[in-house]
Amino acid sequence: MITARAHTNIALVKYWGKKDQKLIIPQTDSLSLTLNEFYADTGVEFRDNLTADDIEIDGQPVTGHSAEKVKDFLDHIRQISGNHNYAKVISTNHVPVSAGLASSASAFAALATAASKAAGLNLDRRSLSRLARRGSGSATRSIYGGLVEWHRGTDDQSSFAEPIMEKVDFGIEMIAILINTTKKKISSRQGMQSSVESSPYYPTWRKVVTHDMVAMKEAISNKDIDQIGHIAEENALRMHALTLSADPGYTYFNGDTIHAIQAINDLRSQGVSCYYTMDAGPNVKVIYDQKDRKKIVQYLGNLFGKERLIISQPGPGVEIIDK
Amino acid sequence: MITARAHTNIALVKYWGKKDQKLIIPQTDSLSLTLNEFYADTGVEFRDNLTADDIEIDGQPVTGHSAEKVKDFLDHIRQISGNHNYAKVISTNHVPVSAGLASSASAFAALATAASKAAGLNLDRRSLSRLARRGSGSATRSIYGGLVEWHRGTDDQSSFAEPIMEKVDFGIEMIAILINTTKKKISSRQGMQSSVESSPYYPTWRKVVTHDMVAMKEAISNKDIDQIGHIAEENALRMHALTLSADPGYTYFNGDTIHAIQAINDLRSQGVSCYYTMDAGPNVKVIYDQKDRKKIVQYLGNLFGKERLIISQPGPGVEIIDK
Repeated sequence: MITARAHTNIALVKYWGKKDQKLIIPQTDSLSLTLNEFYADTGVEFRDNLTADDIEIDGQPVTGHSAEKVKDFLDHIRQISGNHNYAKVISTNHVPVSAGLASSASAFAALATAASKAAGLNLDRRSLSRLARRGSGSATRSIYGGLVEWHRGTDDQSSFAEPIMEKVDFGIEMIAILINTTKKKISSRQGMQSSVESSPYYPTWRKVVTHDMVAMKEAISNKDIDQIGHIAEENALRMHALTLSADPGYTYFNGDTIHAIQAINDLRSQGVSCYYTMDAGPNVKVIYDQKDRKKIVQYLGNLFGKERLIISQPGPGVEIIDK
Repeated sequence: MITARAHTNIALVKYWGKKDQKLIIPQTDSLSLTLNEFYADTGVEFRDNLTADDIEIDGQPVTGHSAEKVKDFLDHIRQISGNHNYAKVISTNHVPVSAGLASSASAFAALATAASKAAGLNLDRRSLSRLARRGSGSATRSIYGGLVEWHRGTDDQSSFAEPIMEKVDFGIEMIAILINTTKKKISSRQGMQSSVESSPYYPTWRKVVTHDMVAMKEAISNKDIDQIGHIAEENALRMHALTLSADPGYTYFNGDTIHAIQAINDLRSQGVSCYYTMDAGPNVKVIYDQKDRKKIVQYLGNLFGKERLIISQPGPGVEIIDK
């Protein structure tokens, strides 16, 4: 059994909308930070004695929609590798339960890496990035560590990620504030599709991203966390404006999301540099310089409880591990 | 002393952005429902023995920014009427304390009506609508009862409101859910200006309104409350998407705003027709047919407390009253 470990990533310039649903070619470029704290370990073995794929996540057999997605992905691997056996897949997610963090990014990056190797393929990282993309868009970026850019491209070949700064040598960190949700979630897949099809602001969003990618790369090359945070926050809000303006309009925010945003604004108005970003769920992620960690943890810990804050440094790219 | 009573109004197609700050010429048309439950009574007398304007609102002398706005407005009346005396102004707001409902609409509609008559002018309603506009954009519409359209126009002459259906002969009603706010408010004046100047989605918002005005007038002529509610809700969310996408981005929503939106969505998914709209504050207004009032009041009353729900029917236009 070949096991790979891949970390999740949080987009600083968001991916929100596909051009090609099947190949997962996005409408725009995007840019993310891979996080050290959250990862998936996925082992794959193709066995000639299996009569179906056997998928186990966190100790439980997987069925339904999640299983179908993994099986479709394995079918693709079988097709390109010529290895037509069924596979045993064992995956463990090191993402806090119900954190609402993008676990599919780490899951499909790890699966692409382990399964391709187990099937006898020997893919370079760019090819792994393309392959992971077929499972989940954001997985494209989780092949690499640190700050990563996903070139939207126009087809399977040209749509892949590459690192901007794989070893991050300045103090950027993130805190995930874990916010409970009792509401039925709109998946990012459904949410972005609805934005593409029904938000009148979508065409302008494409231009926003084109602009923000340039500005963000400039801010990264200057190691300017304030600028990185400001662009990320504005970009996230402009993405969430797409969900509000879709038909029907909706929001991923809940009451605690708004409280967290207000808290971060308050902290900033007290002179502490920190910024927020949100994805397809109510959780808020705080972007800041590690030198300000103590103040931020204290302030947010008082409001939300320290046990609901998860601090993460930049994390590494995907790797094969012994297990 | 001449006293006028004017009712507030809630926009179904929002006014959000000025083209001319001084004359208050809006970027777009808008459309509103005047409400019976919320009004201002304003008495004005120009007296030759006063050495300054003397303004009293709800029994208190008014100073600062609010007083300056009223004085500027009275200056304008003096200029066009030739009556150069200072004025005594006594105003009473029948809007629940801290309801966060647009009280400036009723305030300036009543002031324009009372002050122009007290100064010896005899203006028709269209002229009153233009005049009220100089005090507060939304006051333009409060001259008329029922469903009202404000033509954005291009200058002082052409920017005025007129009624679409002054006596509303179908069952539309609104419930205002009073939501407390402890946060410092961004005024609608500041908020809309920031959207015009810094939201990349603003140019598209103009097209959204052009489209929604046509659709809303069609829905009104069909007395189709579902269609009216749907268009109003979508229009409101697309307006609030402008605040999120401004730089800096912000929101008028607080946690309870999100809870109210969720409650109305839940109620609708149970088959009760109701829709929401929000303005420059956290309060949520529910749009529905009076035949569904009982169910809606019961459901929202359980969640928010019946004392926080204010039911309102369509209200009349401005009138001179004996006091």
